[in-house]
Amino acid sequence: MPEGRKMGWAIAIHGGAGEIPRSMPANRRQPREAALHHCLNLGVTALKANQSSLDVVELVVRELENCPHFNAGSGSVLTSDGTVEMEACIMDGTTKKCGAVSGLKTVVNAISLARLVMEKTPHIYLAFDGAEAFAREQGVETMDSKHFITEENIDRLKQAKQADRVQIDFTQPAPSPEVTLEKISPIEGDSQIGTVGCVAVDSLGNLASATSTGGLVNKMVGRIGDTPIIGSGTYANKFCAVSATGKGEAIIRATVARDVAALMEYKGLSLGEAAAYVIDQQVPKGNAGLVAVSAAGEVAMPYNTAGMFRACATEDGCSEVAIWKD
Amino acid sequence: MPEGRKMGWAIAIHGGAGEIPRSMPANRRQPREAALHHCLNLGVTALKANQSSLDVVELVVRELENCPHFNAGSGSVLTSDGTVEMEACIMDGTTKKCGAVSGLKTVVNAISLARLVMEKTPHIYLAFDGAEAFAREQGVETMDSKHFITEENIDRLKQAKQADRVQIDFTQPAPSPEVTLEKISPIEGDSQIGTVGCVAVDSLGNLASATSTGGLVNKMVGRIGDTPIIGSGTYANKFCAVSATGKGEAIIRATVARDVAALMEYKGLSLGEAAAYVIDQQVPKGNAGLVAVSAAGEVAMPYNTAGMFRACATEDGCSEVAIWKD
Repeated sequence: MPEGRKMGWAIAIHGGAGEIPRSMPANRRQPREAALHHCLNLGVTALKANQSSLDVVELVVRELENCPHFNAGSGSVLTSDGTVEMEACIMDGTTKKCGAVSGLKTVVNAISLARLVMEKTPHIYLAFDGAEAFAREQGVETMDSKHFITEENIDRLKQAKQADRVQIDFTQPAPSPEVTLEKISPIEGDSQIGTVGCVAVDSLGNLASATSTGGLVNKMVGRIGDTPIIGSGTYANKFCAVSATGKGEAIIRATVARDVAALMEYKGLSLGEAAAYVIDQQVPKGNAGLVAVSAAGEVAMPYNTAGMFRACATEDGCSEVAIWKD
Repeated sequence: MPEGRKMGWAIAIHGGAGEIPRSMPANRRQPREAALHHCLNLGVTALKANQSSLDVVELVVRELENCPHFNAGSGSVLTSDGTVEMEACIMDGTTKKCGAVSGLKTVVNAISLARLVMEKTPHIYLAFDGAEAFAREQGVETMDSKHFITEENIDRLKQAKQADRVQIDFTQPAPSPEVTLEKISPIEGDSQIGTVGCVAVDSLGNLASATSTGGLVNKMVGRIGDTPIIGSGTYANKFCAVSATGKGEAIIRATVARDVAALMEYKGLSLGEAAAYVIDQQVPKGNAGLVAVSAAGEVAMPYNTAGMFRACATEDGCSEVAIWKD
């Protein structure tokens, strides 16, 4: 912790990192910016009212899940079968208690179910049918699966399936010449934005992290990404809290969230140095971003993609909402 | 990597860490020791025949899964519903490619399905119905769920349910006085042994790790433990390969496997120092053990439980099969 740094609350939020084109139309950009502003204010108000960082990150991620413009909760992208499988994770830095869920099809707020796994079971992580059964036992709000499936995400799935023939599935016949990578990249870019996350430190210095996602468009049924993996998409301890976003497989291989904390704990780096090292050196370019706060109230929001929907605020008056580097 | 250390192959295996009583009857101890000997020899022979470490760890863990004396594959313990939900993970240190599976009910060798996820899909981790569907698509060997349910594990579940009333589930009526912790601890101890794992470095210096488990006796349906979590139960990079065993939730909170590697990478510790630090300082006593090998052919097998079924061998002639500290 840098000497002389005033302790204070801090919060950072993301709504996904990816190949977000600067040409993104205003009608797609503005609702997301507005949602980030709204969620940031919600978190700041809660921190000023002395709510714990754990309560704040849950509150903010619930609100992001309820916003259909991000890939989590009601905006979740679809599996190759056209279904939703949502996942989420929450971690308390002081106790290192954590909870995670995967494979949810009907739960409105995955992040709150993750917190219930943490608080009401001897386990950390419940998935698929067992997680759904636990949701019913706990009486959390559920809705028919259809509620989560938006027209926009049905279109994204169709487009991703087309793109797959070019980009991933080499067993398929060659695409027609007019389906070029250039033509599909804006679609792909849009399809990859959206995992949501929030990290916070309260004025007592307690850290917490929360992440929630619908996963990857056109993912195989049963695929688990980085979000619910403690140490990859989500992590908090007494040094920092981290929430990552981007291509889940790259984030898992680099154990992104734990590595930021490990570089502070084992190598004595500052939050900014640690976060930059992980994003610049440990994850291939174009794959990931993260938001992080330290116990001292510092904020880092590096990414190696074209952009990342993000927002932050600190007790000493900084506040920012941004998508690209400007 | 210590200077002057001769490069060479090395292998280490575990069959679970826990409160293994020294009073364990010979008829329970000997078959496990024999299996460790057999599996160690299998791995050593493969390494001497210049098989890659990735092939060796898969081969050895398949054999351990096929042995009903360990908690993986055909010896998997049961969920609170009396079902099996097996999980496994494999990682290649050179490429950091990895594969993981959870919630398997019919797959004979979970570790080989994890490898197929790594090699045949764009993902790292498939779980539950999606993983079972992938198993069928790939044509791996499956058997009816009943095949995996042994009489011994039906008894363990009954005993664990009784023990739960004392140890975990405080919502239940108080136990009768004759059900004391002392009386149930041997049962519990036996119920917690058994996750299997293998780490190896081949003579080219390539590292790999593999872990497979039935999980925790009386676990909730849908519970995911540390085994399939990259960085917790399983990890490999160019410094070392690690497979952990014990109480999954404690291992996840401490990101045990990645931390051993991170202490080498970020703090410059030797394999032995890093492994000892994680087990002594980062995981509460009584919760975990691990086996690890370094690129230089060193081996570490620390644990903070009463015992750990383990075995190792190196090119320079060391060979050991042990359960307790002697």
